[in-house]
Amino acid sequence: MRKKSSAPTMKDVAQEAGVALGTVSKVINGIPVGESYRIRVEAAISKLHYQVNSYAQGLKANKTYTVAVLIPNTKDPYFARLTNLINLSLTKRKYRMLLCCTDSDLSFEQEYITMAQQNKVDGIIGLTYNPNLLINPETPFVSIDRIMGANIPCVTCDNFMGGQLAAEKLADLGCRNVAFLRTGSSLTNEPNKRKAGFENGCLARNLHYETKILEDDDLIEEFETFLRERMQNGRLEFDGIFCSTDLLAYRIIQLLSKLSVKVPEDVQIIGFDGVRLFGDLDYICSTIVQPVSDIAEMCVQILLQDTLTARPPLICLPVSYAAGGTTKEPPERPESLSG
Amino acid sequence: MRKKSSAPTMKDVAQEAGVALGTVSKVINGIPVGESYRIRVEAAISKLHYQVNSYAQGLKANKTYTVAVLIPNTKDPYFARLTNLINLSLTKRKYRMLLCCTDSDLSFEQEYITMAQQNKVDGIIGLTYNPNLLINPETPFVSIDRIMGANIPCVTCDNFMGGQLAAEKLADLGCRNVAFLRTGSSLTNEPNKRKAGFENGCLARNLHYETKILEDDDLIEEFETFLRERMQNGRLEFDGIFCSTDLLAYRIIQLLSKLSVKVPEDVQIIGFDGVRLFGDLDYICSTIVQPVSDIAEMCVQILLQDTLTARPPLICLPVSYAAGGTTKEPPERPESLSG
Repeated sequence: MRKKSSAPTMKDVAQEAGVALGTVSKVINGIPVGESYRIRVEAAISKLHYQVNSYAQGLKANKTYTVAVLIPNTKDPYFARLTNLINLSLTKRKYRMLLCCTDSDLSFEQEYITMAQQNKVDGIIGLTYNPNLLINPETPFVSIDRIMGANIPCVTCDNFMGGQLAAEKLADLGCRNVAFLRTGSSLTNEPNKRKAGFENGCLARNLHYETKILEDDDLIEEFETFLRERMQNGRLEFDGIFCSTDLLAYRIIQLLSKLSVKVPEDVQIIGFDGVRLFGDLDYICSTIVQPVSDIAEMCVQILLQDTLTARPPLICLPVSYAAGGTTKEPPERPESLSG
Repeated sequence: MRKKSSAPTMKDVAQEAGVALGTVSKVINGIPVGESYRIRVEAAISKLHYQVNSYAQGLKANKTYTVAVLIPNTKDPYFARLTNLINLSLTKRKYRMLLCCTDSDLSFEQEYITMAQQNKVDGIIGLTYNPNLLINPETPFVSIDRIMGANIPCVTCDNFMGGQLAAEKLADLGCRNVAFLRTGSSLTNEPNKRKAGFENGCLARNLHYETKILEDDDLIEEFETFLRERMQNGRLEFDGIFCSTDLLAYRIIQLLSKLSVKVPEDVQIIGFDGVRLFGDLDYICSTIVQPVSDIAEMCVQILLQDTLTARPPLICLPVSYAAGGTTKEPPERPESLSG
């Protein structure tokens, strides 16, 4: 019989629940176990008034219960939402989050990697465009949207499928002559697959297509030249445009308004990301929606999982399509605004 | 003469710059000093290749160089921008930021306060709606938008002036009969002064006004009833509406569209916050712009300043007005999009 005088331990919980010690540990650390096991462990925790002493745990396991998150900024709505959801996933597991917005200085990223190597944080979740970043394969690091090297898992949405879905939707909506527009870095990153997926979809559905890619975000006026050259008698030759992000879609819609081309009447537009006004109101345009909540949860789960478990190199999570007023279906409205 | 063999110290920098040691310390910690002093110290730092050893500093001063930031979430664009700017202000001073999104569970806030009391973080910057939060006046805590108690500085924008400015703008734009709409908590917080400022502005400019306040964010349909009751023969009796936030302004504009009331032709709308699409593109509506960057910088400065310096109880930073297409001037466009 266990002594009644001291606080209950994890062993007491395991005994009470009739499960292995490892199962209790998994439940406490938010690692999935069978539903019936979870319920038994939680009942035992509750019955014995067992309290997780995360500070003592930290000392014992040399854990800090702190994870660093590297993200370009939080003012971009996609990054803002991702940061929020990673924060919730970590908090749910009693982990703290160090946030580092890296836009202003990429050199901060290397500092956080050093911290992870010195066990000052338990690991890093990073969305980085830094080509010079050096990550030791031993460093607990989960990358978002970019493959960083062997043994560093990358979590992303299924960008290829997203591109293909955009082509299919435009075809379904009656388009015959479409364009793909993209700005940004030519670094080998996962979002670059959006183009290949789109081309694949166009070929499969017999859509005529053209692509225009600008390396520099600031050269948006080159798109104006591109579009002007494809106008005859005030009519744009494209009837559909797929933009690599919602932000680009928004800027292209502004450009088209200047050229007196009507959206969606003259040309239908699909963006990528699923950005919503004020975080969860209307979509800004018709869009391929990233599963942000699943991406956040997956990053945290993989980072914190048992280090002996093999780490998957690339995880692609499914995307979906949402009408947002720039294609010829009625826009989807969030439930809270309907009626 | 100082020894050339060892790394330069802060004393060496002071000697080189011909200033007091305290002045060097202030420059290193980002505390304002006279411009000429700052330049001399920075020149000396550069000449001697002096490097701040923040880890050693931390050990010496019992500092963690970590600040916790409590914010409801980062998906709301105002919170997202504020978080980003606080992060930059902290990083600039070599501080790390622990982020805690509190929407999901207000009890996390109390945990961070305990951490601050136990010197596990150097202090907290918090935007909280938690009426039960207990903060010891000794805890380094800077509050945003809500007065939390004696010796806890509160940083906010000049909400009263913002309300007044909205009334003045509507008067300048030809309105005669206006309304103030607000949702949300009745907690005594600084943003509640927007109403008083607006009423003051209406009285000063002889505007007829009415106010409608809903305690619950989810009861937006009550505004529909309110507005419907103020329509005659398809015309709304108000020619101007001031909404307590841009989010509310956006939802009211949607409501008005349903009622076939045109914005800005039939009724001009001004919101509050200065939210921009994608963080820094167009304003979502005409708006009273919060000085988010100054708020972030001020919070960090006050939190990290010498503890012997008196802490100001309430700091109100100036707001400005920006046309955003829901009033009868041409909307202001960010420079990058012009031309």
